[in-house]
Amino acid sequence: MTNTEARATTFDDRPQPRTPDEWIARAGEVAAILAVDAVARDKAGATPYAEVKLLKDSGLVTLLAPAEHGGGGQNWVTAYQVIREVAKADGSIGQLLGYHYLWAWAVRLVGTPAQIEAVEEAAAKHRWFFGGAVNPRDGDLVIRDTGNTIVYNGRKSFSTGGKVSDVTVLEGVLEGTETHVFAIVPSDQPGIIFHDDWDNIGQRLTESGSAEIRDVHVDWAAAAGFVDKVFQTRVYNTLNVPAIQLVFVNFYLGIARGALETAATYTREHSRSWLNSPYERAVDEPYVLDIYGDLGAKLWAVEALADQVAVEAQRIHDDPDALTERQRGEHEVRVAAVKARATEVALEVTERIFEVTGARATASSQGLDRFWRNVRTHTLHDPVAYKRAEVGVYLLRAEIPAPTWYS
Amino acid sequence: MTNTEARATTFDDRPQPRTPDEWIARAGEVAAILAVDAVARDKAGATPYAEVKLLKDSGLVTLLAPAEHGGGGQNWVTAYQVIREVAKADGSIGQLLGYHYLWAWAVRLVGTPAQIEAVEEAAAKHRWFFGGAVNPRDGDLVIRDTGNTIVYNGRKSFSTGGKVSDVTVLEGVLEGTETHVFAIVPSDQPGIIFHDDWDNIGQRLTESGSAEIRDVHVDWAAAAGFVDKVFQTRVYNTLNVPAIQLVFVNFYLGIARGALETAATYTREHSRSWLNSPYERAVDEPYVLDIYGDLGAKLWAVEALADQVAVEAQRIHDDPDALTERQRGEHEVRVAAVKARATEVALEVTERIFEVTGARATASSQGLDRFWRNVRTHTLHDPVAYKRAEVGVYLLRAEIPAPTWYS
Amino acid sequence: MTNTEARATTFDDRPQPRTPDEWIARAGEVAAILAVDAVARDKAGATPYAEVKLLKDSGLVTLLAPAEHGGGGQNWVTAYQVIREVAKADGSIGQLLGYHYLWAWAVRLVGTPAQIEAVEEAAAKHRWFFGGAVNPRDGDLVIRDTGNTIVYNGRKSFSTGGKVSDVTVLEGVLEGTETHVFAIVPSDQPGIIFHDDWDNIGQRLTESGSAEIRDVHVDWAAAAGFVDKVFQTRVYNTLNVPAIQLVFVNFYLGIARGALETAATYTREHSRSWLNSPYERAVDEPYVLDIYGDLGAKLWAVEALADQVAVEAQRIHDDPDALTERQRGEHEVRVAAVKARATEVALEVTERIFEVTGARATASSQGLDRFWRNVRTHTLHDPVAYKRAEVGVYLLRAEIPAPTWYS
Amino acid sequence: MTNTEARATTFDDRPQPRTPDEWIARAGEVAAILAVDAVARDKAGATPYAEVKLLKDSGLVTLLAPAEHGGGGQNWVTAYQVIREVAKADGSIGQLLGYHYLWAWAVRLVGTPAQIEAVEEAAAKHRWFFGGAVNPRDGDLVIRDTGNTIVYNGRKSFSTGGKVSDVTVLEGVLEGTETHVFAIVPSDQPGIIFHDDWDNIGQRLTESGSAEIRDVHVDWAAAAGFVDKVFQTRVYNTLNVPAIQLVFVNFYLGIARGALETAATYTREHSRSWLNSPYERAVDEPYVLDIYGDLGAKLWAVEALADQVAVEAQRIHDDPDALTERQRGEHEVRVAAVKARATEVALEVTERIFEVTGARATASSQGLDRFWRNVRTHTLHDPVAYKRAEVGVYLLRAEIPAPTWYS
Repeated sequence: MTNTEARATTFDDRPQPRTPDEWIARAGEVAAILAVDAVARDKAGATPYAEVKLLKDSGLVTLLAPAEHGGGGQNWVTAYQVIREVAKADGSIGQLLGYHYLWAWAVRLVGTPAQIEAVEEAAAKHRWFFGGAVNPRDGDLVIRDTGNTIVYNGRKSFSTGGKVSDVTVLEGVLEGTETHVFAIVPSDQPGIIFHDDWDNIGQRLTESGSAEIRDVHVDWAAAAGFVDKVFQTRVYNTLNVPAIQLVFVNFYLGIARGALETAATYTREHSRSWLNSPYERAVDEPYVLDIYGDLGAKLWAVEALADQVAVEAQRIHDDPDALTERQRGEHEVRVAAVKARATEVALEVTERIFEVTGARATASSQGLDRFWRNVRTHTLHDPVAYKRAEVGVYLLRAEIPAPTWYS
Repeated sequence: MTNTEARATTFDDRPQPRTPDEWIARAGEVAAILAVDAVARDKAGATPYAEVKLLKDSGLVTLLAPAEHGGGGQNWVTAYQVIREVAKADGSIGQLLGYHYLWAWAVRLVGTPAQIEAVEEAAAKHRWFFGGAVNPRDGDLVIRDTGNTIVYNGRKSFSTGGKVSDVTVLEGVLEGTETHVFAIVPSDQPGIIFHDDWDNIGQRLTESGSAEIRDVHVDWAAAAGFVDKVFQTRVYNTLNVPAIQLVFVNFYLGIARGALETAATYTREHSRSWLNSPYERAVDEPYVLDIYGDLGAKLWAVEALADQVAVEAQRIHDDPDALTERQRGEHEVRVAAVKARATEVALEVTERIFEVTGARATASSQGLDRFWRNVRTHTLHDPVAYKRAEVGVYLLRAEIPAPTWYS
Repeated sequence: MTNTEARATTFDDRPQPRTPDEWIARAGEVAAILAVDAVARDKAGATPYAEVKLLKDSGLVTLLAPAEHGGGGQNWVTAYQVIREVAKADGSIGQLLGYHYLWAWAVRLVGTPAQIEAVEEAAAKHRWFFGGAVNPRDGDLVIRDTGNTIVYNGRKSFSTGGKVSDVTVLEGVLEGTETHVFAIVPSDQPGIIFHDDWDNIGQRLTESGSAEIRDVHVDWAAAAGFVDKVFQTRVYNTLNVPAIQLVFVNFYLGIARGALETAATYTREHSRSWLNSPYERAVDEPYVLDIYGDLGAKLWAVEALADQVAVEAQRIHDDPDALTERQRGEHEVRVAAVKARATEVALEVTERIFEVTGARATASSQGLDRFWRNVRTHTLHDPVAYKRAEVGVYLLRAEIPAPTWYS
Repeated sequence: MTNTEARATTFDDRPQPRTPDEWIARAGEVAAILAVDAVARDKAGATPYAEVKLLKDSGLVTLLAPAEHGGGGQNWVTAYQVIREVAKADGSIGQLLGYHYLWAWAVRLVGTPAQIEAVEEAAAKHRWFFGGAVNPRDGDLVIRDTGNTIVYNGRKSFSTGGKVSDVTVLEGVLEGTETHVFAIVPSDQPGIIFHDDWDNIGQRLTESGSAEIRDVHVDWAAAAGFVDKVFQTRVYNTLNVPAIQLVFVNFYLGIARGALETAATYTREHSRSWLNSPYERAVDEPYVLDIYGDLGAKLWAVEALADQVAVEAQRIHDDPDALTERQRGEHEVRVAAVKARATEVALEVTERIFEVTGARATASSQGLDRFWRNVRTHTLHDPVAYKRAEVGVYLLRAEIPAPTWYS
């Protein structure tokens, strides 16, 4: 029995948190449970059913759900903090939770008022865990229009959530058009085959493998944002990229913070000062202090920017219809900036912790490399050079990026 | 006539700003005036009488002064933004203004309620510009106790403000003791000789030369914080270091932002794409965009941390008596972190702008090196390695720095 | 059957190389064989018997052995190149070969002329593969003097070579003294138990686990460098640290070069240009070219320094008795410098290759992380900060490091 | 009287050096003279007549000239070391000497055997100091063909040497063609007006201002490399770029080495350990040692690469007719790599020395910023990003750069 399973009843009979601080504390409790056997879980690579159950039992999955449906009624500022907290203990679970928030919010991104109401009510009631098969780089889900329904067919190279999700957000293109259609469908159905072929060096528990879609039928009424088969556009529809990139940022920062804290504990408890060193303890070595200080300061700076950009994002979510293209573009640039910094600093932190823990910290049993592997793997989602370029173009030419699947 | 002199009446008959945003806009106006001949001013190196007058006329010098005395009634969060804004145009003037705020606040740091009331009223009424002769590394102002008065004698290697200040904060040590005494004295008196010997590569207009003090008499009643010759201690007294280091941080960030914007204008208007480049304009060169994006993202991150720490500082100022040693220490660590990052990023920005402006931008007439010279000079005030160490000790050993003149 | 086994007869009936270039080409052939299943070998983590046999069959193990005994008669300059070449394909095997050269040379470092003659003849004749149990940080092999023999007992936390070695260099301390005694003993004997407990994230095939030593008897005549139980000192005896650190440097550089070449092949063959990129091929993306250019230039610089320092080392080996303490110290400083640079650049190369290969390159099947894991693990052998400090002390204070086990 | 003037007779009656080591020692003597008032010279910015005379009197100007003409008969490997040595003391004079070598060699680059013989004899005999007006980016010298002579007219934005040169290498384009023609002409003639308008932040004494050319007549016979008005091409003609870029590299490295040594002297003699530091001397502070160690190691690595590439260059010069396009291209890539590294490391060294010398080292009287200003100015000659790209293209696509004016 894993620690997560052993702690299955931790949150039974406990009231839902109320304030942002309480929610973050709740996330901290979840993280503490996940941390105990994070190394073993990473090695085993088993499907994280128990961990997703923990996210449900703790209430974290409905953090963003409206209070009127029994959800936490919190906003993205808090959600991003919660993602960070969970990712400190386990980067994969942090990612799963972050993507879940994103997919659960997708109906607000593109749905009609009626769809929003229906989906959010059901999601809160059933504590749905959301996954997605929306990787846009391979436009290979084709949609057939059969009159009242649309039918998805094809294959996605990557998905997230897969077998641990209750529902999956599908994205495909209407045959003969360039129209993308999103829909939420039950994950557990014969037409969706998750291939369990995600075997990468990091974020190993994210169920990110390929998915095959065979004749998945969706009512036109459930085609997100469509009214009479016509998509209802507004600027807010294009907020998916900044929103998910901020999810990325926050689990990168969580992983980096987890790495720094785990390393600090190791240095305190296990590292020795160097032979012939004038210092008795490793924690007194000037080079050790310098590196911790440097990494800590860098991480604080990016966290501060992430916090600031989260507030900027929330301002948009608070009044979606007011969003102009220029505002959307300037927000995307800010997100691009924090994405670039979070990537670079998280890589640096997770790499350099070894320099201050020492040779024995490379034992496989310590699993100290998982932080780097996790960050290294996911930060390749899209090239950071293109993010810096978005910022550069803005500063130099005052131009905003055109909304695409990656900007 | 310099531009600053030419614009001498700009703020006549204009009401004082009210909100933080209005104050920052006002600072922006001041900066715009200063920017016009910043290069010429740096080269000439003359005493900035006109520029300090501008700071007075614009109202910026009384920004922090209580509203009941006719001051702006703003807090440090706004003051730090205002420093940044002014430093964008002229690093020296930004430093002078920042130090002024600090020295004007010194009476709150260590003074008695009666002293605070008296000084703040006079300062607001006469629009005093504050300077200081408080460099602590050379404990060479000696104080004689003559009964009712104390008499300062000695020499300070560095001061700030000097001849452009109305009053100077003196600091010395009571003969035969280790007791430091601060006092505010008129700058223009025979006993204070400013030697005008500041000839360094940067921050050239800050009047930072040495000062000789000969028999400057101060009433014991004006010895800041002393009651019956006994200093009234509280934790808040030790806040001088984090407070002034945040001043540093903000003019470093202002200079860096000024450098980046000045460079961007140059690249747009003057730089050419490279020979044989596939790009027609320099602003389209991928390496140019990458560098602007990188520098911009880094600067945003440190600015965000500076903003966050300013809010943390203000919380302390809002309730000075509640401050505990632990809180003071943790705040100092946060300040140390942002000091380290601001130093490193400001150096990087001011150095790398040349790579994206090109060879002709090294013409002396452009003065583009002043940003680097300014940052390089002042960031050596105290070793950044010791700042990183404060952060490292905290993260690794959970210890806070003991309050000293530099931590 | 592994590829190495399949190619077992590759070098049968082929003459020994003669020139340095021929030897390096031979190493290249060995590397090509090792490269084929390096990823699989790293995953399997099996004891590399076949690979050591390959090193023997190819002649590489006797590269440094005197020609009069049938060895290659080459010098360290060539040996370091050969190590680099092998490490390009497999960091572990590169390390094993490098340590073998070092331990085989140990008799020259400390032995008497008679011992040198005897050991080198036997080593060449039997193609001994040398291992070592000499980790100095834990002085835990104790030697009992029984009159004609000395008897080793104790435990080493780390050794290298272990079960794949024919002979092992033991190091211990004579009971009641501070005298270290080296001796070469057969690896396969009841008194030496290799615990097979090396399970670290990198250099997984180096047989670096702990070793237990129980009553291993050695004739006083075989105690390296002792005549009538008295050690014959000369400055050359202290060359072990620079010599082995140059071994480290060269396999780090080999691993880094291997990483860069493997990544370049991947980018060419598999990476795609970015969505919406103006470039059709990944190999045309400016950011990709910039990173390859940057890493390539950095690696060339450190390789050049390693080449230069190897020549300096060889000058010492060519006339060991002429070596002065000052020369030894200045050589150690040069080695420290190249160690620092090789560490930093190898880490940077092995980390950043992912940025130019892309997300799919993180597939476990690619094993592209092994380069980083290998470098990250071994570069922690001793803190690089202490190496930089040696250089700093020399440049600033003109002092050379005292010979220790790590300087 | 400047120190250089005072030492005017230093080399009178002294024999010419013979070996490379003697030449480098001679350069060291010159450097020692130049170092004494390098700061004052930089500030004064006067035309360096005395300094060029020193280069002549010491024999350095004829270092590369054939022995049969009375020259030093040395090769480029030595010349590059000599440039480095002189640049340590004065970056401007190092550049002037380096460009002189380059322009003096230009006749070998493109000239006919007869022209080589004639020019080298005259150059050695009269100890010509060569300047050049060859900036290729502005193709604005136009050449008229008048039958027996060609006539140059136009303007160059930049030249080097100017008024301190005896002869100037002109480059222009034959009217109505794309044919470039080089010719060596006396600098002191009415048709050449040096505008003395070089006023940049660094390399202030290099006489790099613009030049106006009015009706400068040259015999067709002196048109370098032309026979019957047809240019005699060979691959070696295109070696100008790698050759001059190696000149750049070596004076960058000299400046950086000078900066490091000057800073080390300052730290030893003037810097204080930090207040409350556990160390009494600045030279014992760990952060100070770390930075010197880091900078020293980086500089050694680039110097080693520069040495290696100089040997590669010399191999080409030793057999110019054997040079293939591929070899030329691969050499250019190596030069590009060392150019990139030298640029980056020289900038880092000259910037970071302040961190280890401290606040007082920013005094204008110290002139410690001249190293950075010098490196910063000249390294913008052409974008380092394009140099990295050359290396990247080679490593990734195995392609060599086409010969242009910058590659």
